[in-house]
Amino acid sequence: MSNNITDHTQPSIEFWFEFGSNYSYLSAMRIEAAAARQGVVVRWRPFLLGPIFQSFGWSNSPFVLQKAKGAYVWKDMERQCEKYDIPWRMPAVFPRPATLPMKVAAAFAEDPWIGRYCRIFMTKNFALDEDINTWEQVGEVLAGLGLDAPVVLEAACSDARKNCLREATAEAQARGIFGAPTFFARGEMFWGNDRLDDALAFAAANQ
Amino acid sequence: MSNNITDHTQPSIEFWFEFGSNYSYLSAMRIEAAAARQGVVVRWRPFLLGPIFQSFGWSNSPFVLQKAKGAYVWKDMERQCEKYDIPWRMPAVFPRPATLPMKVAAAFAEDPWIGRYCRIFMTKNFALDEDINTWEQVGEVLAGLGLDAPVVLEAACSDARKNCLREATAEAQARGIFGAPTFFARGEMFWGNDRLDDALAFAAANQ
Repeated sequence: MSNNITDHTQPSIEFWFEFGSNYSYLSAMRIEAAAARQGVVVRWRPFLLGPIFQSFGWSNSPFVLQKAKGAYVWKDMERQCEKYDIPWRMPAVFPRPATLPMKVAAAFAEDPWIGRYCRIFMTKNFALDEDINTWEQVGEVLAGLGLDAPVVLEAACSDARKNCLREATAEAQARGIFGAPTFFARGEMFWGNDRLDDALAFAAANQ
Repeated sequence: MSNNITDHTQPSIEFWFEFGSNYSYLSAMRIEAAAARQGVVVRWRPFLLGPIFQSFGWSNSPFVLQKAKGAYVWKDMERQCEKYDIPWRMPAVFPRPATLPMKVAAAFAEDPWIGRYCRIFMTKNFALDEDINTWEQVGEVLAGLGLDAPVVLEAACSDARKNCLREATAEAQARGIFGAPTFFARGEMFWGNDRLDDALAFAAANQ
């Protein structure tokens, strides 16, 4: 098995997620380390859940619409974060708006800083309970990564890249994605943070 | 830790399930062995999902109503059954009607044969693709367990026991159950076959 990231025979996993999704948080925080242990490359695939939910006739997250499920989910998150040793604070706003940082993520999903970038926004939302959707908030994160924030933000909103997030969301829908996180390994779909390990094992078994 | 089932200090887990639920099948087939390994007693709690789903405004299982999710679930079941080494055949009817065997299960949920009884109906539904809802079909299973089938069936439909299933379903709803399987351990709710091991560990940690 090769450790060369440009080796196209190296197994890979597609990680479809969004910053507003709490179960995506659990996967975002651990996927790169877990994938590296299996020799699997992560392809970060940001998309918006809102349009997917709307296509089912839902006006919001099922965790908001179904009260009993919603009440359970926050208890589950507390226990899951403890299990994985990931910090957790119940967000005051759920789902937290994140279209701007998601737009940047979609526009630069192949860049080497994408994993660090995503973990910062996930941490802000689900561990620090901070808003993340303004030009200033995103710019600060980009600058913290050593990037030229205005250049990156303007590029994400340019004609060449501004539709990346919309196109990714359409692709998610076309491929039958109905929630997040969702993984694809060797053409098979795995849904939910609870399937991350199965998906990685399936990806790695290709060698 | 005591192995005496009448010892009320022994940890226990409530297992809320229904015969029509495919993810309940995964738990029903393995819960007693898994619980025994942890010194935990299983309390079988049959209930009907239909009235719970109706209370959300759903006319059927979400796996039927949401086409993308439904398509995924059968692939997931295939992989999960392989992982747990449990037989699997896609049922021709989903969700398969099972009110009569569920009524018997609710009426005799504390009897020592309940685990074997439930595994037979789960196997018929999800491994053999057989119908399970007639007086004859349920009677045959009871007789196979060495029981007096007509006596058991009539007792399950008697004034004393005929409301057990309805009462269990009302209790499920009152306790915030929104799907199956659901487990309760030391007062905490755990939802889904993916949480069975966590729930058992939590139950056992009480000692």
